[in-house]
Parts: sequence; structure tokens; C-alpha cells
Amino acid sequence: MNNSSTDRSIILTGDRPTGPLHIGHYVGSLRERVALQHQHDQFVMIADAQALTDNAENPEKVRSNVLEVALDYLAVGLDPECTTIFIQSQIPELAELTMYYLNLVTVSRLQRNPTVKEEIKQRGFEKSIPAGFLTYPVSQAADITAFKATLVPVGEDQLPMIEQTNEIVRSFNRIYMQDVLVEAKAILSKSSRLPGTDGLGKMSKSLNNVISLRDSAEDVRKKVMSMYTDPNHLRVEDPGQVEGNPVFSYLDAFDSDQDTLDAMKEHYRRGGLGDMKVKRRLLEVLEAELGPIREKREEFARDPGQVFDMLRSGTEKARGVAAQTLDEVKAAMKINYFNN
Amino acid sequence: MNNSSTDRSIILTGDRPTGPLHIGHYVGSLRERVALQHQHDQFVMIADAQALTDNAENPEKVRSNVLEVALDYLAVGLDPECTTIFIQSQIPELAELTMYYLNLVTVSRLQRNPTVKEEIKQRGFEKSIPAGFLTYPVSQAADITAFKATLVPVGEDQLPMIEQTNEIVRSFNRIYMQDVLVEAKAILSKSSRLPGTDGLGKMSKSLNNVISLRDSAEDVRKKVMSMYTDPNHLRVEDPGQVEGNPVFSYLDAFDSDQDTLDAMKEHYRRGGLGDMKVKRRLLEVLEAELGPIREKREEFARDPGQVFDMLRSGTEKARGVAAQTLDEVKAAMKINYFNN
Repeated sequence: MNNSSTDRSIILTGDRPTGPLHIGHYVGSLRERVALQHQHDQFVMIADAQALTDNAENPEKVRSNVLEVALDYLAVGLDPECTTIFIQSQIPELAELTMYYLNLVTVSRLQRNPTVKEEIKQRGFEKSIPAGFLTYPVSQAADITAFKATLVPVGEDQLPMIEQTNEIVRSFNRIYMQDVLVEAKAILSKSSRLPGTDGLGKMSKSLNNVISLRDSAEDVRKKVMSMYTDPNHLRVEDPGQVEGNPVFSYLDAFDSDQDTLDAMKEHYRRGGLGDMKVKRRLLEVLEAELGPIREKREEFARDPGQVFDMLRSGTEKARGVAAQTLDEVKAAMKINYFNN
Repeated sequence: MNNSSTDRSIILTGDRPTGPLHIGHYVGSLRERVALQHQHDQFVMIADAQALTDNAENPEKVRSNVLEVALDYLAVGLDPECTTIFIQSQIPELAELTMYYLNLVTVSRLQRNPTVKEEIKQRGFEKSIPAGFLTYPVSQAADITAFKATLVPVGEDQLPMIEQTNEIVRSFNRIYMQDVLVEAKAILSKSSRLPGTDGLGKMSKSLNNVISLRDSAEDVRKKVMSMYTDPNHLRVEDPGQVEGNPVFSYLDAFDSDQDTLDAMKEHYRRGGLGDMKVKRRLLEVLEAELGPIREKREEFARDPGQVFDMLRSGTEKARGVAAQTLDEVKAAMKINYFNN
């Protein structure tokens, strides 16, 4: 973090409601948000409009995950009193800002965006990229600037998005000769990404290698017990590899008892420590965190109406802030005909 | 026109507020709008947001022309009681619809749009096309569909825009399995385009070959008297050419006395009719139409507050219609979380 703890910043972050949030999200961002919410003004966006840029044909999936993601947020301890949780599509000001920013960015600049290029490849879009997908970095710039966010927690791969946002901020302020928009700084996630339980790469729902926050205790147990480890660690007495062994990566992320963990790694390396034992330890520390989250989640899930009320009031608050920024933007652009 | 006069249709049309409306606009569209306003529900949009897609750096030009275009509208006889005149940027619903439609159109489809291709060439954008410019056909689809317009008056060169709109309409209704959006039909302008007074091509403010509705009587006189005619018609007694002679093109558009005009053309062709005489006739018929328009324009210009009141109430009415469509769109997309 770039700011001292006495500096109050505005943070914008969020998730696309396309599937369950999992322990990768928890370790990579959710846990940090819970910590940040007391020191900063934090806006957390459920990015349903962005999710629709490559899920236009699956609106039901997006819709149902809005509630699920909100439940995940509340379960991990995001507190609506501290964090403004809102739904992107319910803030028309974000669409308006996007439209004006689209005039400040060239098509070739968007086509050069490394994150978008990579994602286009991943999704196999190639020649049939939806226009909304190519332009979503501009929409992200609208999200960030609408709240005048100065800190944006991102992974390394999302840094080009912050760069694009700041280019728009500088263009806008230069062209319209007013310091309306504010540049944002990235906060890079400290923890490296958790691999999937299969050890084959990152977590992905479609690969079924994910432990989700909404998984039952029994599901978590099964997933941990069938986790990939060191394929050469065949007998208990064999020496085992800790690096690249997802069970130990998870322990690094969840076990706060560093001494015990170090001793365990040592033991595993020299041989004599069975995978089952390590997995049982992982299950124990994992459940110590996931158990209470699961319980809270079930409690909130009993009253979806209350969750939507929370979302509604967060969205109203966020909308007020975005509307204020849009007013300033329109005034700078001199298209506030009816205001004076 | 495709509809019988008893069929009441919804019409959407409009202009980019980037300069004075001229007699080309008058002959090509404004005159027709005045006729159509009594038979149909007509929405006329001052497309300031669209103007900004290639005038991002000139907001003052766009802003000042909003009032000027409104004055032109009122002067030619658009009646706010019959025609809903509104300002595009003041209807956030149009931006929202655009964002959702962007997901239904591919980048390569936009790049193939013949109108956009031509305009990119004209503006010398090439590699530096603003994203908002490439995507403006999608924004036009939002404008047209927001009002469920079934008739859109366009020039031949704008037909691809209607095609793009109808593709979006069909995609949307298919994907979301509801007949929310309505396809539009083009009404092709009957009159061909008036050339510039220099006879070199179309009217263009930068070429100073334009007679504007806001020109003074003296300016109109000067412009008509210095109009390009047949360059081979050197002496009065020489035979002259009527085809491609802008003075006669203008007479075709403005002189309702067909017999006199036919006789004049005949006389000009065989020789003995001087350019000055033809120009004086043109000035006479032109002033018969422009004089009252100019007078009305000056009257309205004395009270810009009243014009803005008219724009405000037109915009409110238009916004109500667009908001209703957006509600239906969001319901079909299942992103109307707070509505039920």
C-alpha cells in the first residue's frame, strides 16, 4: 500500500457475478477488503453490466450470481456500514461516463490493451469480439473515476486497466481544462494466486478445481482430501516437494502458525510425512476460516429480501456519488444545458 | 413513404448540432418533418452526444449550436405541440441502451459499416478513430429503438444505419426471447441533395458554399448573386446548360411555379437568358420561403429562455418514453433487481 494508515483514500473494487467466489478470491482480495474497509472509503461493485459483455446470452446466470456474490461479501465480513456495496447496472451514470470517455480513446489503443488481448484469446473471440468487450476498459475507467477512486486493488494482469483509466483522466482534464477527474493508483495483491486443487493452473469453475465460499463442509473435505500433491511422493517415507505442491500453497495462505508450518515443510521434504496428514492440517486451518463464513452465509441466505435491501441502499449511496461526478463532467463538457 | 396516411407511426430523426442548418437541410429533411408532424408521432433529436464523438475537443461549438439548431427547428415550423424536440445527452437511458447493445455487435461488424467507413475516410481518422465514433451506429440504434420508432427519414448514405439497428433489434429479441424492440423502416428523402453554391459538391460550412437558415437577407442576396452557373454561358445570347447548374437545382427545389420554371429552362438552353435574371428569380422564390423563417427565427432568438423551456419539456417527454423502453429491456435481460 502506498498510503500511510492516516491517509483516508477512496477505493473501488468489485467482482463479475458469473460464478461463486472461491478461496482464491478470498485470499487474493476479499480478506484484504475486510481489512481496508475501516481505514478507507471503500466501494465494492457487483459488475453485472461488465459480466454481460461476454455473457449477453446468459442473463440468468448473471442475475442469480448477483445475490450469491452479495452473500459471499457479507459472509466474509464486508460490512455495509463501512463498505458501499452496489450493483453496476443500476447506476446509469456509469453508462453515461463510458459514452463520453469512448470519444477520448482510439480503437487501436483499445486493441493494444494487453489484458483485453489476452482475454480475447482465452475466450476464443478472435474475429467476433463483441464491441462491448473491446470497450470494457473504458467502462472500467468510468467505474473508477465515477467514485474518484484513488486506490484500486488489482492483480498484476489488471495493471493495464489502471493505465488506461489514467490516460482517460489526463485527456479529459486537459481537453476540458478542469481538474474534474482523479488519477488512480493500483494496490497490487500481496499474495500470489492460489492454484486449483488439481495443481494444473488457476482455479476455474469449469475445471472443477475450485473450493468455493459457498461449498458445504463435506464438499470442502472431499476436495481437500483429493487434492493434487507431489506426484513423486509415493510412499510416506519418500522425500516430498513443497514448492508447486498446492496443499502447501494453501497452507501458506491459511495457516497462521508459521513455526508449525515450517516444521511440517521440513518433515515433508526429508520424508516421513504422509500427504493425508498434511491435508488434514490444511482442512483444519481452512475450516477454521471457512466454517464461520459458511455459517454467516447461511444466515444471510435465509433472508434474500434483506440482502437486496442492503444492495439497494448501497446502490443509492453509490449513485449519489457517481451523479455528482457526472454533473461535474457534464459541466466541464458544457452539456449541462438545464442547470443554469 | 411506406405507410398510408391513416397509419400513425413513430418517427425519429434529428441533427448533429455542429453548425447552422442550411437550405440543404431544409429541402432534404426539415420541410418534410413539418409535413409529417401532423400525421405521426415525431421525435426530433438534437444529437449533441453524437456530435461529441468527433468533436470531443470542441464542446463549446456543440453547446452553442444546440440553441441555434433549436431556433432553426422552430423557425421552419416544427411545432413543439406536435413534434417532441429533445437533447440527446439529457437522456441517460440512451447511454444505457447503447452499453447493452454494444454486447450484441461485433467489432468487425462495426468496421464493415459502409457509412462509418466513408466518414472515417472523410475525417482522415484512419488509425486514430475514436472508439465512440466507431460505435456510434450502436448509439443510433439506441436512439431509434428507445422511442420504438418505426419510420426513420434518412438519406441513401444512412441506410446501413437502419440495417445495423434492425440487426440489433432482431438479436436482442431473439436472445432475450421477448418482442421488446421494434424494427424501423427508412423513409428515403424524395429530393436529391442540393449542391453548394460553388457547384463543386455538397454544401459544407468550411467551403463557405452554404446558404444557412440564419443568414441575413443581405447575405442570401450576395450568395445567390455570386453563385456558380454554367461556366460556358459567357454571353447572354450563348446557349446555357441547366443540368448541373446549381442555380437551376435550387429553382427546382424552391420554385413551385413549374410552368414558369420550365419556360425559363427552355429559354436558358437556347440562349438569350442571362444568369442575373435567373438568379433574381431564384432570390425571389428563395426569399419567399426564407423571409418568414428568418423573421420567426429572430422572434424566438429574442427569448432563449423560452426556447430552453421548450427543449426541457420536450426532453422530459422523450425521457419518459425512453425510460419505459429501458425498463422493458432491463426486465428482458433480468437486470431489474429492484423492481419486484
